[in-house]
Amino acid sequence: MDKTKQLTSVLDHVDANFERSLNRLFDLLRIKSISADPAFDADCEKAAEHLAADIASIGFSAEVRPTAGHPALVAKSNGVGPGKGAHVLFYGHYDVQPVDPLDLWNRPPFDPVVTKHADGRDIIVARGAEDDKGQVMTFIEACRAWKDVTGSLPLDITILIEGEEEIGSKNFGPFLEKNKKDLTADFALVCDTSMWDQNTPAITTSLRGLVYDEVIIKAANRDLHSGIFGGGAQNPIRVLTRILGGIHDDNGHITIPGFYDGVKDLPADIRAQWEKLNLTPDVFLKPIGLSIPAGEKDRLLIEQVSSRPTADINGIVGGYTGEGSKTVIPAQASAKISFRLVEGQEPAKIRKAFRDYVTARVPADCKVEFLDHAGAPAIALDWNMKPLAAAKRALTDEWGKDALLIGSGASIPIVADFKRTLGLDTVMIGFGLDDDNIHSPNEKYDLKSFHKGIRSWVRILAAFAEAPR
Amino acid sequence: MDKTKQLTSVLDHVDANFERSLNRLFDLLRIKSISADPAFDADCEKAAEHLAADIASIGFSAEVRPTAGHPALVAKSNGVGPGKGAHVLFYGHYDVQPVDPLDLWNRPPFDPVVTKHADGRDIIVARGAEDDKGQVMTFIEACRAWKDVTGSLPLDITILIEGEEEIGSKNFGPFLEKNKKDLTADFALVCDTSMWDQNTPAITTSLRGLVYDEVIIKAANRDLHSGIFGGGAQNPIRVLTRILGGIHDDNGHITIPGFYDGVKDLPADIRAQWEKLNLTPDVFLKPIGLSIPAGEKDRLLIEQVSSRPTADINGIVGGYTGEGSKTVIPAQASAKISFRLVEGQEPAKIRKAFRDYVTARVPADCKVEFLDHAGAPAIALDWNMKPLAAAKRALTDEWGKDALLIGSGASIPIVADFKRTLGLDTVMIGFGLDDDNIHSPNEKYDLKSFHKGIRSWVRILAAFAEAPR
Repeated sequence: MDKTKQLTSVLDHVDANFERSLNRLFDLLRIKSISADPAFDADCEKAAEHLAADIASIGFSAEVRPTAGHPALVAKSNGVGPGKGAHVLFYGHYDVQPVDPLDLWNRPPFDPVVTKHADGRDIIVARGAEDDKGQVMTFIEACRAWKDVTGSLPLDITILIEGEEEIGSKNFGPFLEKNKKDLTADFALVCDTSMWDQNTPAITTSLRGLVYDEVIIKAANRDLHSGIFGGGAQNPIRVLTRILGGIHDDNGHITIPGFYDGVKDLPADIRAQWEKLNLTPDVFLKPIGLSIPAGEKDRLLIEQVSSRPTADINGIVGGYTGEGSKTVIPAQASAKISFRLVEGQEPAKIRKAFRDYVTARVPADCKVEFLDHAGAPAIALDWNMKPLAAAKRALTDEWGKDALLIGSGASIPIVADFKRTLGLDTVMIGFGLDDDNIHSPNEKYDLKSFHKGIRSWVRILAAFAEAPR
Repeated sequence: MDKTKQLTSVLDHVDANFERSLNRLFDLLRIKSISADPAFDADCEKAAEHLAADIASIGFSAEVRPTAGHPALVAKSNGVGPGKGAHVLFYGHYDVQPVDPLDLWNRPPFDPVVTKHADGRDIIVARGAEDDKGQVMTFIEACRAWKDVTGSLPLDITILIEGEEEIGSKNFGPFLEKNKKDLTADFALVCDTSMWDQNTPAITTSLRGLVYDEVIIKAANRDLHSGIFGGGAQNPIRVLTRILGGIHDDNGHITIPGFYDGVKDLPADIRAQWEKLNLTPDVFLKPIGLSIPAGEKDRLLIEQVSSRPTADINGIVGGYTGEGSKTVIPAQASAKISFRLVEGQEPAKIRKAFRDYVTARVPADCKVEFLDHAGAPAIALDWNMKPLAAAKRALTDEWGKDALLIGSGASIPIVADFKRTLGLDTVMIGFGLDDDNIHSPNEKYDLKSFHKGIRSWVRILAAFAEAPR
């Protein structure tokens, strides 16, 4: 069978068996693998075992291996792939974000369903539908289709799936180091990214880094009555709001000294290309009910969300937050804050700059504590990397529209780890959309993303098999 | 029996029956009458019924009467009191504050016990031990002792106990209006106040007012992923911290325009007297783990906590507040904020000034909503009011130390309502202490406060019976 006919057969097989692919995704979505909450530890284990069994059914040697936290899964195509040519390391994660606030979900988050979007699109709704279970399954189903039709894979593949991506992958660096010899490859594939829009595929070539910190301000040794102590006793919520309220200036710039050190302006050619993409508030913000870019006023919106560093308070809590009122001055208040970093910023320096900024502003009577939740540098791929061209061609063939090379505002710390520990560059391809509500109630994945995502990987694997390493 | 012998007999009876008084207090403390949480509605009803039965057992005609919220209790001494001479209206509340954070309590909050304070004092520990069940029972037990020993009360008494003091007494104004004719008296007594210190009794002659508001900032129409939207989308926690963080300046002054309008400086003589009281940070703040007054830098600590207006954020919440981290930009964030007011400030004007301040600072893309939780003006008694002298004499006799006339930083909105609706001035006497942990975990009431509190009321009732109206 010639290569073109073979590819067509595999794509046809994907179409004919799509219902089964969907059922397999649903089985995975039903597992409540929330990594942040210890109550779901057993579910995380279950998700790893479930995926190992599923991947083994395609002929991979699949093993669940322990980490210091939730287990990871390593699967190798030995005996299934050709044992020669390019060898890719595919990465995904089986863990999902917490589901709160639960009352904003239209249906139970772990009871997946195909339903209609308000605009008529068919969508899969469940926690993890996109991030990252749906995306992972596009790749696994593509492998399955190749194996079903041709009896083998077009190239050697190692699949690596972890369970702590949503909580900072703290134990995954040591795991990579320990399992290094089993993870050799020519380059890595990461599926945790998005398309440009519903019809335009994209390859992500840069990612923002992340520093995630928690700050806890402590004042009195107990909660106080604001009638007796109000005015005299320090209030940790007042201290916290005062400090965090000063992190942005009136123009949206971050005021922490040294924060922008090392940050470069966009090269003129990229800036010109991005201006042409014309990411307007109407396109990007209107669907989420907003209209005015909230970042640095002197930057394009596309810069604000992909090439510029940011600070966001992701959570804050202190005092009485129940129904009604309580005249309390609490003993402590805390906030979770994260910084998206770009090339040139060092996570450790940014964390120190933030902590110094806070510490300098804490009144003598209060104590401050910090918790380190995550840290990863930004990364940027060489646009001339060879597999990029092969993947771009395959995506363009599938979607009938030129695939774009874009920067992502999100952080995928593993990409830096792959470079540092395994020496691998990473090609990032995914089929998410900005309106997928990932990390939010009613997370969804377009049925089209899932279907054409599988077909895209079928084509990309063929293209990689033929491309020079 | 002459008056002095009679008084001695009643006081002896209090001592001899103190264990029984304590058991009756414990029965009341076991009722979980948390007014803020609808889950405890039945317990509030139960507390009202329990008190009505107890007060009826002394011979009062006691009735539980409905309000638009939790019921109130009206009990009249018709046929028990002498039907002539002064007539007092005693006020208390049976509702208590929520108990969270529950894990900071050393024992279950509704399982009262007498135990030892770290410094050796005997204390009663339970939610409501002081505020206000313990204080209410000092009065009821004093009435019981008079009735047990003499067969009647020394003067006519109406007892009025409500169930929504801890949530702003919103339905109590209309209740007073409706029950006006049953609530005639010469003056009112309120027991919800404190001593100067463990050995020095006090009568409170001024109270701060209260405005309690909740502010809710809404941005996007759903929670967002900070990787995709961070930098571009407005973050309501950022907006909220920025606005609330600006409410105090570097000198502890409140920056809301018009906030201090109408606020007067202390008269020179009162200021001189207060300076002599020498309320130092060591005395007032050290027991709660603090050392530096947090209020206006140009004011005495005693002014900061009693005669100056304040702003305190009592609660704040937004985004992810669970374990670990979540890279979310929440759709909304909210805070509860209260202002203690002094003479000259109008609650409605202060609420409007606050809301105007916030609204002017909300970015065009965000929406703001407010909830009104409570409002009451400050009040100040005439120091020459006649019953003050009688009460002062009785307290001085019981404690062997001159009773002080003081200002309280707390708010008891009912005192303004009594003046407005019933035309009554209020004498405020209570036996609380600053370290009672009211509204906090491990609330306590000194056993001595409870015992000598009962004895104090026995003496005060006798003194009122003899004093000119």
